[in-house]
Amino acid sequence: MANSELSFNDRAMDVVDELTFRIHEMGVEVVPVGRSQVIDCGVNVIGSVAAGVLLARICMANLARVRLVPGHVKEVPLSVVSVNVGIPVAACMACQYAGWQIKVGDYFAMGSGPMRAAYGGEDLYNDIGYRQRARRVVGVLESDKLPGEEVFDYIASKCNLSPDRVTLLVARTASLAGGTQVVARSVETAMHKLHTLGFALDRVVGGFGAAPVPPVAKSDLKAIGRTNDSVLYGGEVTLYVTGDDDSISQLGPQVPSSSSRDYGRPFAEVFKGYGNDFYKVDPMLFSPAVVSFQNVQTGRVQTFGALNHDVLAASFFG
Amino acid sequence: MANSELSFNDRAMDVVDELTFRIHEMGVEVVPVGRSQVIDCGVNVIGSVAAGVLLARICMANLARVRLVPGHVKEVPLSVVSVNVGIPVAACMACQYAGWQIKVGDYFAMGSGPMRAAYGGEDLYNDIGYRQRARRVVGVLESDKLPGEEVFDYIASKCNLSPDRVTLLVARTASLAGGTQVVARSVETAMHKLHTLGFALDRVVGGFGAAPVPPVAKSDLKAIGRTNDSVLYGGEVTLYVTGDDDSISQLGPQVPSSSSRDYGRPFAEVFKGYGNDFYKVDPMLFSPAVVSFQNVQTGRVQTFGALNHDVLAASFFG
Amino acid sequence: MANSELSFNDRAMDVVDELTFRIHEMGVEVVPVGRSQVIDCGVNVIGSVAAGVLLARICMANLARVRLVPGHVKEVPLSVVSVNVGIPVAACMACQYAGWQIKVGDYFAMGSGPMRAAYGGEDLYNDIGYRQRARRVVGVLESDKLPGEEVFDYIASKCNLSPDRVTLLVARTASLAGGTQVVARSVETAMHKLHTLGFALDRVVGGFGAAPVPPVAKSDLKAIGRTNDSVLYGGEVTLYVTGDDDSISQLGPQVPSSSSRDYGRPFAEVFKGYGNDFYKVDPMLFSPAVVSFQNVQTGRVQTFGALNHDVLAASFFG
Repeated sequence: MANSELSFNDRAMDVVDELTFRIHEMGVEVVPVGRSQVIDCGVNVIGSVAAGVLLARICMANLARVRLVPGHVKEVPLSVVSVNVGIPVAACMACQYAGWQIKVGDYFAMGSGPMRAAYGGEDLYNDIGYRQRARRVVGVLESDKLPGEEVFDYIASKCNLSPDRVTLLVARTASLAGGTQVVARSVETAMHKLHTLGFALDRVVGGFGAAPVPPVAKSDLKAIGRTNDSVLYGGEVTLYVTGDDDSISQLGPQVPSSSSRDYGRPFAEVFKGYGNDFYKVDPMLFSPAVVSFQNVQTGRVQTFGALNHDVLAASFFG
Repeated sequence: MANSELSFNDRAMDVVDELTFRIHEMGVEVVPVGRSQVIDCGVNVIGSVAAGVLLARICMANLARVRLVPGHVKEVPLSVVSVNVGIPVAACMACQYAGWQIKVGDYFAMGSGPMRAAYGGEDLYNDIGYRQRARRVVGVLESDKLPGEEVFDYIASKCNLSPDRVTLLVARTASLAGGTQVVARSVETAMHKLHTLGFALDRVVGGFGAAPVPPVAKSDLKAIGRTNDSVLYGGEVTLYVTGDDDSISQLGPQVPSSSSRDYGRPFAEVFKGYGNDFYKVDPMLFSPAVVSFQNVQTGRVQTFGALNHDVLAASFFG
Repeated sequence: MANSELSFNDRAMDVVDELTFRIHEMGVEVVPVGRSQVIDCGVNVIGSVAAGVLLARICMANLARVRLVPGHVKEVPLSVVSVNVGIPVAACMACQYAGWQIKVGDYFAMGSGPMRAAYGGEDLYNDIGYRQRARRVVGVLESDKLPGEEVFDYIASKCNLSPDRVTLLVARTASLAGGTQVVARSVETAMHKLHTLGFALDRVVGGFGAAPVPPVAKSDLKAIGRTNDSVLYGGEVTLYVTGDDDSISQLGPQVPSSSSRDYGRPFAEVFKGYGNDFYKVDPMLFSPAVVSFQNVQTGRVQTFGALNHDVLAASFFG
């Protein structure tokens, strides 16, 4: 796949241009940092759900169509973000997954987007391939602070580029754009769970997912709760797969969030119960509420899990 | 906000170009009037729902994403128009609101769109700002007649331009495009109600709304009934707001249409009961069926009102 | 309608360019055949639902907006394809309808798309008009084999062009793109049924339809079952019509699939019962589950048929 069409970072840059072309409308701001620039989508600015949709497309290297549609949780209207992904391993795992923890001095952010593929330092790439040299890189940071020059320097050095070749976009979890881009990870969350379970990801040839855009929470901690709940209790994913059905029958029950011992309460409660230590939360929890496998070779459909709008309502409106 | 990105009329003109590029497909017609042009979207032409979607984007200065999705009223399929608005005060109040009554000789039309901001003669602009000088203006007229030269002259003079710098689009209420652009006003209707109630509109930093596209009625009078019912009984709006929650708790119950003494019957009946005199209808009636406030600072969600598909079915299919 | 805007084949070519610009993302492949090219969207490649959406737009000469939205059949999530058609006679009948059976040697395919209008050999065009000379043609083939040079030669000769002026796209029924483009025919299926019933098609001035994207089946035969079921039991269509209401009241009950003696079982069963002979299936069966007529002149709405998700679930998941 040497084709330039799949230059993840170049593709993402197209969407960055779309975003900066409409900065006021999107409620975002371009902030120079040294010779680089960060696009603030939700730290010192209000941002917008629309900016979150573009962030999601940037995270997935513009390899997905991301749309808002009207939806409900318990008769309360809200928007639902749907994603239609053509090459889930590339779009979701190589690009969108927030697998790069950026720690520089006292700066911390979850890093996602195609810059990860240019860095390629995560073990994940040994499994999936898709490391890609890039002339410039684009990354999305989930953080409550704008990155300084040292963060650009760090990312640039990991990608063997000069800092002016790095574009970063940042939004805190408790923001319109931040919350939206996180819950646009319904297909990615399913893919990641499958990877954890040892499923051969290249069997997944396409994905379609939807999850409600959660109301912005008062704090980032509470926002982490709501965005997780959106996917865990309100996320629905269809995966188009190849191969045999038996492996899916066996593995399937472990795929949705309901397979976890921590399932059934708002994530913020679960998290608090573990002293806000992510590493104590059952990793099996992180998955959409419903995952449906459509085998494009055998024609069989196997669906696991169920929506849980009671927990979702408690999380969003409680 | 001097940025050209927010030149409302230039932004709207981009969508006018999109519409005229596809005139046949959209069922619209460009009619020269003196040295100006009017785009007939639903007076002497059939038009289309798709043209109504573009009219809605023109009304909002292309500051919103407008989409059709499949929906139902009592198992009858119809399309639902959803709007995702980034800057509701600008998009909905400064541009989309039909606040300019155009009366020239015996011509009458409700005028909306960004030409209003260039004129700036409505008191509303004293409250919201957003008056904008423009090199050319775009306006949308809800009327059953095409405007003549004297209408162009009038609007041009109010905007300090020559008539050839004025582009008008027109559709009667009882037309596919006319009905669609009216019910794309779900967020605007909520904003206007909030303004009437004295809520500080700059607290609203985003909006998402949906309302069913009503069947075209036999007459404009009946169409006014159905388009109003679409929003009053079928419209759902989410507003992203800042500030305190108490003011919302207090004001909230007055926001949805159900707060009005005139609520509960098809609008055409209410209107007829008042001798078709708009000024006798309770102004509190004009609001979506459901309005949900998501406070992006406190995380609290407060929802008021409820859908009423019984009245909607009576209006659409009765 | 001599306007170049309505050059069906040129319009379709715009979408072909969109598809080939994103070949990897779409999972499709461009295959040279002599001096022509075929775009394999689902024969030797996996393809994608997104490619099916583009195929649908190509079939309809880009005269429709085609979108995926999240939906369900019996709590199983899947995507639903909605179509918003401005000029149904042109888009659906003159272009999209699979009315050209391509038989060349042992090659067989159902041919659809605007190449049909350039050929104009089907009797249908005597009724609807819209034959169009073209400088180049675009066709969509539903087939399990790529066409060879002799197929290009045949189509070229029928359209009075040289073979290098022919672009073909092909997907088997049992493929992501193939299944999607077939069920994007909800409005077309209603139009075709109306034509069969003798309804004056020029009374239909617009259409909006939706149908679930069926899971890819194990074989093309089974896929024919599922794609038909998607429309017959899950398809909902709104038609905007002119003229009198009585003709609709009379004809209406015959329009939805439920009017057929063969209604009520998965199509594969019905088909098998007739020895897989299409010509024995009741032609009245081929219609959406629900057809709603909105008369844009009288304001009356008449709806016929009902969804049948029991049969749909049996077909998709049984």
